[in-house]
Amino acid sequence: MVEIKHDESLDDLILSGLKIIQKKSGFRFAIDAVLLAHFTSLENKDKVIDLGTGTGIIPLLLTTRCEDLDITAVEIQGNMVEMAKRSLELNNLDNIRIIQGDFRELESLYNDKFNLVISNPPYLPLNQGKISPREDIALSRHELKCNLREVISTASRLLKMGGRFSLVHRSERLAEIITEFTRKNIEPKRLRLVYPQLEKPSNLVLLEGIKGAKPGLKIEKPLAVYDGQGNYTQEVLKFYGGDFNA
Amino acid sequence: MVEIKHDESLDDLILSGLKIIQKKSGFRFAIDAVLLAHFTSLENKDKVIDLGTGTGIIPLLLTTRCEDLDITAVEIQGNMVEMAKRSLELNNLDNIRIIQGDFRELESLYNDKFNLVISNPPYLPLNQGKISPREDIALSRHELKCNLREVISTASRLLKMGGRFSLVHRSERLAEIITEFTRKNIEPKRLRLVYPQLEKPSNLVLLEGIKGAKPGLKIEKPLAVYDGQGNYTQEVLKFYGGDFNA
Repeated sequence: MVEIKHDESLDDLILSGLKIIQKKSGFRFAIDAVLLAHFTSLENKDKVIDLGTGTGIIPLLLTTRCEDLDITAVEIQGNMVEMAKRSLELNNLDNIRIIQGDFRELESLYNDKFNLVISNPPYLPLNQGKISPREDIALSRHELKCNLREVISTASRLLKMGGRFSLVHRSERLAEIITEFTRKNIEPKRLRLVYPQLEKPSNLVLLEGIKGAKPGLKIEKPLAVYDGQGNYTQEVLKFYGGDFNA
Repeated sequence: MVEIKHDESLDDLILSGLKIIQKKSGFRFAIDAVLLAHFTSLENKDKVIDLGTGTGIIPLLLTTRCEDLDITAVEIQGNMVEMAKRSLELNNLDNIRIIQGDFRELESLYNDKFNLVISNPPYLPLNQGKISPREDIALSRHELKCNLREVISTASRLLKMGGRFSLVHRSERLAEIITEFTRKNIEPKRLRLVYPQLEKPSNLVLLEGIKGAKPGLKIEKPLAVYDGQGNYTQEVLKFYGGDFNA
């Protein structure tokens, strides 16, 4: 029996009956991770690595899209790793390996090239926004342990030629993201902009690049999170596994 | 009285009663120029230069948004320049100066710095798509006389620090555009994606950069050209000056 501690909640992901352990207060996964897990291109037998997995939400969701993935997930925070491991046990998933450590320094990872690198990294540079006094929230939001350049250069080192890197990030950093992808030989190939509503500016971008590919970007149809009435759109409801015909 | 030749048409722009002379067959302005003229930030007394003005559509439309602009428009094709000059005369516009020449080589332009560079350049590299046997169409579509890098480096040379560069281009080239803007010290600041319909991939991008600015991109709400029924959306109808309440 997997233990759920008094300050944790056990949350249904609904999709395929998965469950995830999270702190009741503190860092909890957000829609960004859900959108990314559904955006990324995925193929059977992909060898995947998730950089900064937190409580393991992205690996869990990827298993609902493809059964025979080989997933490595790296997280620097020990308490998150421990929760993620219990979530895997709870869901009887043995194709996900959680590693505690700083992905910039885990040299052993680099022997093993991946088909897919995926990441929902901290979004904020250190000079922007108040840094949370809670360490788990601070490390998830602010670039305290790794910045955008380091995430992208790590992805490039970990990828096979022809392998994919899928990233979710803030829209305001898209120019920097594209420039860094290109500098690290990851050609931006698929872009989807996320709009809170279709009448509002985009707040998030989903970008997939391919290492060593030729130029040519496909910008997919816009992804709106809420409709004009403030309800989740049909597409987002599907990602949450809700009854979208209700 | 301004002459309209037998192979030309005189087309109403509706907005402010403007008219434009174009060839009946051959190169005619498209929605791209209209979207760009309405997208760009514009301030009174802006000193503007349009690179590759064709029949002068962008300068004409800019005058409907702001009255006291000082506009220079450069075009390499003599017959286009001649038509553009007659259109200006017809509309009694004396704040637009049309120059025939190759903007890469017009050294005199570079003494004079601009607040706004605007361009709807040819979209296609020479190895992509069939090159039209009609020279006017070929030069407008294919990068025969200038490529994307040259347009961006020319814009950077022409701009004051803090000046804006507004560009419309194909979505598939966005990564290259952003990388080149950054390389030429034009920071991408406003991006708007154009979708033929909201359920389709984006085909055009509108991008405005500011020379020497700090990073930080605003991605504005999506711009749909047609609604689900195949009619122009309200926003696009406004650009054409049509009765959008009809």
